[in-house]
Amino acid sequence: MSNSIGVDVGGTKIAAGVVDQKGDIVARTRRDTPSQDVSGIVGAIIDVTRELAAEHEIGVVGVGSAGFVDAGRSRVMFAPNLAWRDLDLRDRVEDATGLPVVVENDANSAAWGEFRFGAASDVEDMVLLTIGTGVGGAVVKDGALYRGANGIAGELGHLRMVPDGQLCGCGLRGCLEAYASGTALVRNAQSAATSAAVTFSGSAERLLEMAAGDPGNITGPMVTAAANDGDELARELIADLGRWLGEAMGSLIAVFDPATFVLGGGVAEAGDMLLEPTNEAMRRSVTGGAHRPHATVRFATLGNDAGIVGAADLARL
Amino acid sequence: MSNSIGVDVGGTKIAAGVVDQKGDIVARTRRDTPSQDVSGIVGAIIDVTRELAAEHEIGVVGVGSAGFVDAGRSRVMFAPNLAWRDLDLRDRVEDATGLPVVVENDANSAAWGEFRFGAASDVEDMVLLTIGTGVGGAVVKDGALYRGANGIAGELGHLRMVPDGQLCGCGLRGCLEAYASGTALVRNAQSAATSAAVTFSGSAERLLEMAAGDPGNITGPMVTAAANDGDELARELIADLGRWLGEAMGSLIAVFDPATFVLGGGVAEAGDMLLEPTNEAMRRSVTGGAHRPHATVRFATLGNDAGIVGAADLARL
Amino acid sequence: MSNSIGVDVGGTKIAAGVVDQKGDIVARTRRDTPSQDVSGIVGAIIDVTRELAAEHEIGVVGVGSAGFVDAGRSRVMFAPNLAWRDLDLRDRVEDATGLPVVVENDANSAAWGEFRFGAASDVEDMVLLTIGTGVGGAVVKDGALYRGANGIAGELGHLRMVPDGQLCGCGLRGCLEAYASGTALVRNAQSAATSAAVTFSGSAERLLEMAAGDPGNITGPMVTAAANDGDELARELIADLGRWLGEAMGSLIAVFDPATFVLGGGVAEAGDMLLEPTNEAMRRSVTGGAHRPHATVRFATLGNDAGIVGAADLARL
Amino acid sequence: MSNSIGVDVGGTKIAAGVVDQKGDIVARTRRDTPSQDVSGIVGAIIDVTRELAAEHEIGVVGVGSAGFVDAGRSRVMFAPNLAWRDLDLRDRVEDATGLPVVVENDANSAAWGEFRFGAASDVEDMVLLTIGTGVGGAVVKDGALYRGANGIAGELGHLRMVPDGQLCGCGLRGCLEAYASGTALVRNAQSAATSAAVTFSGSAERLLEMAAGDPGNITGPMVTAAANDGDELARELIADLGRWLGEAMGSLIAVFDPATFVLGGGVAEAGDMLLEPTNEAMRRSVTGGAHRPHATVRFATLGNDAGIVGAADLARL
Repeated sequence: MSNSIGVDVGGTKIAAGVVDQKGDIVARTRRDTPSQDVSGIVGAIIDVTRELAAEHEIGVVGVGSAGFVDAGRSRVMFAPNLAWRDLDLRDRVEDATGLPVVVENDANSAAWGEFRFGAASDVEDMVLLTIGTGVGGAVVKDGALYRGANGIAGELGHLRMVPDGQLCGCGLRGCLEAYASGTALVRNAQSAATSAAVTFSGSAERLLEMAAGDPGNITGPMVTAAANDGDELARELIADLGRWLGEAMGSLIAVFDPATFVLGGGVAEAGDMLLEPTNEAMRRSVTGGAHRPHATVRFATLGNDAGIVGAADLARL
Repeated sequence: MSNSIGVDVGGTKIAAGVVDQKGDIVARTRRDTPSQDVSGIVGAIIDVTRELAAEHEIGVVGVGSAGFVDAGRSRVMFAPNLAWRDLDLRDRVEDATGLPVVVENDANSAAWGEFRFGAASDVEDMVLLTIGTGVGGAVVKDGALYRGANGIAGELGHLRMVPDGQLCGCGLRGCLEAYASGTALVRNAQSAATSAAVTFSGSAERLLEMAAGDPGNITGPMVTAAANDGDELARELIADLGRWLGEAMGSLIAVFDPATFVLGGGVAEAGDMLLEPTNEAMRRSVTGGAHRPHATVRFATLGNDAGIVGAADLARL
Repeated sequence: MSNSIGVDVGGTKIAAGVVDQKGDIVARTRRDTPSQDVSGIVGAIIDVTRELAAEHEIGVVGVGSAGFVDAGRSRVMFAPNLAWRDLDLRDRVEDATGLPVVVENDANSAAWGEFRFGAASDVEDMVLLTIGTGVGGAVVKDGALYRGANGIAGELGHLRMVPDGQLCGCGLRGCLEAYASGTALVRNAQSAATSAAVTFSGSAERLLEMAAGDPGNITGPMVTAAANDGDELARELIADLGRWLGEAMGSLIAVFDPATFVLGGGVAEAGDMLLEPTNEAMRRSVTGGAHRPHATVRFATLGNDAGIVGAADLARL
Repeated sequence: MSNSIGVDVGGTKIAAGVVDQKGDIVARTRRDTPSQDVSGIVGAIIDVTRELAAEHEIGVVGVGSAGFVDAGRSRVMFAPNLAWRDLDLRDRVEDATGLPVVVENDANSAAWGEFRFGAASDVEDMVLLTIGTGVGGAVVKDGALYRGANGIAGELGHLRMVPDGQLCGCGLRGCLEAYASGTALVRNAQSAATSAAVTFSGSAERLLEMAAGDPGNITGPMVTAAANDGDELARELIADLGRWLGEAMGSLIAVFDPATFVLGGGVAEAGDMLLEPTNEAMRRSVTGGAHRPHATVRFATLGNDAGIVGAADLARL
């Protein structure tokens, strides 16, 4: 079986790689994401595919995209951040490259990468939560992705945590994503550093130093780094994010009863500072918790490569 | 293949039947449930099984029980309302009857009955919510029950709807079951009829008439019947229950993306009075709702037989 | 000025005393409360009044009652737990005793007792929260009770804490009383001890010992006593109650900006185990908390006498 | 008694007037608000005061400012939107103008204007909620402002409506202001028009027309105007705002028991479209609602002049 290409379409860059049977990336390329421009993004996907295919023998191409991908793995029905609506992405890339193409949801791709070659390669089922701009999710059961009737199961970031809660980018109120995404982390950090509120009361000395004194400069990686340097506010913010993840896991355990959760995204850098409050909240939030085995929570191990590897491998199925 | 026995262990009665390959119940028996008495209930299960096996050739016995049933389909790990803790139910019934026995969760049994022979016999996947003393749940995907790592997936009644919300029988706060069960319906009805609160403001004339003037007499079937007779309070209460179901479906769609929901339990008698607010809330609560097909909501069709039929049929698998 | 009688009408007993100008009780009597019987309770109030008036020269009688008392201080408009509706309590006691009578809300009476002769005798304004069967409240401002347009201000137990939260005895959902009353404390204790839930996960060894092994026997004073003996579950439950009080205080500070809160009721026995989480939550929940003086929280000092003393003293005004 | 000057310090303009004993504004002036510049804003306040004082005989000056004003009516302790921290505003304006100056909170000023000369001139107590960038509040009782121990009572916009709800500008989560301010109205409108969410599902045809097709252009006055033109989405958004106000009023009635609420700010233009859902939610949210008189809700009548008139009149007290 030949190698395949995996393309990971992100908000800031489009990363692609040639992936072999063992899940190794044997060649790579990338482009900046043309902002909010449908044709531009599709063009860049075609471009990286052609570049890699020119140098390697390729069987199939997997494209991992944010948003709702249809059950036929060909169309992006809805991708809020990319402004895509019912885009025939598979046909457009196939027509331009002459290669067979499969489109997958980006969290599904990352989950599959971790399941086949990463953090969950030793288990048969897992639930992935990946913390980025939003909160992505995916469910693997009996060795296969749980896709749902329309191909869009596993939108775990849109589990409702709080009725009439924080407004989510999807237009609903109170979604997990509105509390536990990188975007929420940064918004909370900026608000706490600005308003001297007491919701988060710790000193933000190190965090503000990193942000050159301006809360508006705070980024997600800064929060994680400041927490690792002992910044109190940053540690509170990461513990708060973990608490939300753990409470969501309580509901996810009630419905899926998984043995393993995998946490992906940059916040994984926070290690135990994230994992302990997550586990504590998860145990507190699960029905019948005294009478059942507890799920384990692991961090993803493939980092940014998970999407490329997973999309490439899924395309072979 | 021979007929099998299905036993449905409920809080008030233990109902059993001999079920043929077509899902028809060809013989029946029942006992009152001995209250809170482990040996008594196990004895009654053995009793009905022996009674039916004496007259019919039986291949296997399926017992549907409330609570957490282990992945081996043999032990009841936890059943709050039956006061069972880690009960080796399969072995005890097998030893006493000499027949092979399989234990299943009661909502799984009912869901399987509806999936094979009832409301969902024409689809490949479904999510069941059954409204009784509690709220039971089950998920069928690709023609099989979704069981989870420990056999206890599908506890949909314990999806958290409200942080720090109404206390649930499971000890957590804010579970769906605390808002949308028959128990919650009766509690709300009694409270509304007693305290002249304005949360539910409709006239309860017909409902109080049925209850002989004493709110303490109100039962779930009375609420449904009074609603059908036009009682305003009863209609509000049923619409409120439907709203909770619909909001829960919003989260369940995000995670499962099912094509079909099946609603079971006595409230199904309320028909469109329940279905309309359920659908309205479901559509309002689903992420990306403008860009996806909507799930359909159906009522179960097998009534109280679903558990017997489903348990008997599952035992053959 | 002559002495006055104060009568405190409680759910289990009717306690009365002759109170002098210094707030001292110079004579006492009491009766058990006739359950749910309007005439019986009124009769007992008349009875204790006559008994004390026979031995003492009395100027006026103050009756502190649960429920909504009208602005004219004569009628009980609504008292859910006593099943009173629009009762002309002043006239009935005046007619029977020949003494001038004033009716006051019980929490107002207790607050006034503490304000004049107890925990708040050194300040000009205070907000009282008293934790009993329900959560009572009263506000003193510029040395006078805040009564509102209809005489029923200060129903602080019915501040909404959680939309669609725990059902309250008043028929609404999510009132403070549904989380922070003695009734809620007992319900949570019984549920936690019964269901082995993990919401409250501490060991309940001492608490169950006091309850002779049966969670159904647990009472409020048992929880406080067990907490003082180091019972983990009891301490968690009291900290949880304190957290709710503190969060409510956050909203009460936004609206009243008081210098002082007084906490009454039996939970005061829990001392710092209650006070610390209360203060912590209060500080976390107040708007602009970094830019304002923080309110102080004190315990009431008159105990069960506060209602008698306050009702007697208010009757003189 | 001579005339006085009232100055209303707003986020976009500083408006001032000479106010006579009857509450009429006999002369006016204004300046644009220098953005985020403490000295500039103070300078503009001095400027308008000098301009008016040059032409009129003035007894005293009242300055109405957003934020926490101290009990001595001289310092602004905290004004988040003006970036003020512990500013000695009274002294600075007195030193520059030679006139006696009193500083008041802006919502208190507006409430006092309405109480003395506007919508509430016929009552003795009222609670004001004013919907602008934030949600301001004020309480008048027995003919006087309720000021609290530190001068900062009546911050009704920071009543907590939803635990862990929408982030508020003050740094807390779930404040009324985060749901019912003009800012929230615009945010909801832009989100609903952008994401085709189903939380608000009505057609936004007229609203988008007013916004030239770009949801980012939507303003608060556009929402009110579009609602008056029949735009479905705009009507839903205003009804939602009214629902939040009504639910907050439920809690405010429990604590204050007012006879009258006055609603100020631009949303008053929405008339019954706002008032009906407000009243409906208020009645549904009040404890013991079946056993008490209901508060009435009125719109403010002085419009933008309320702050000038109220500040000028309060300065005389």
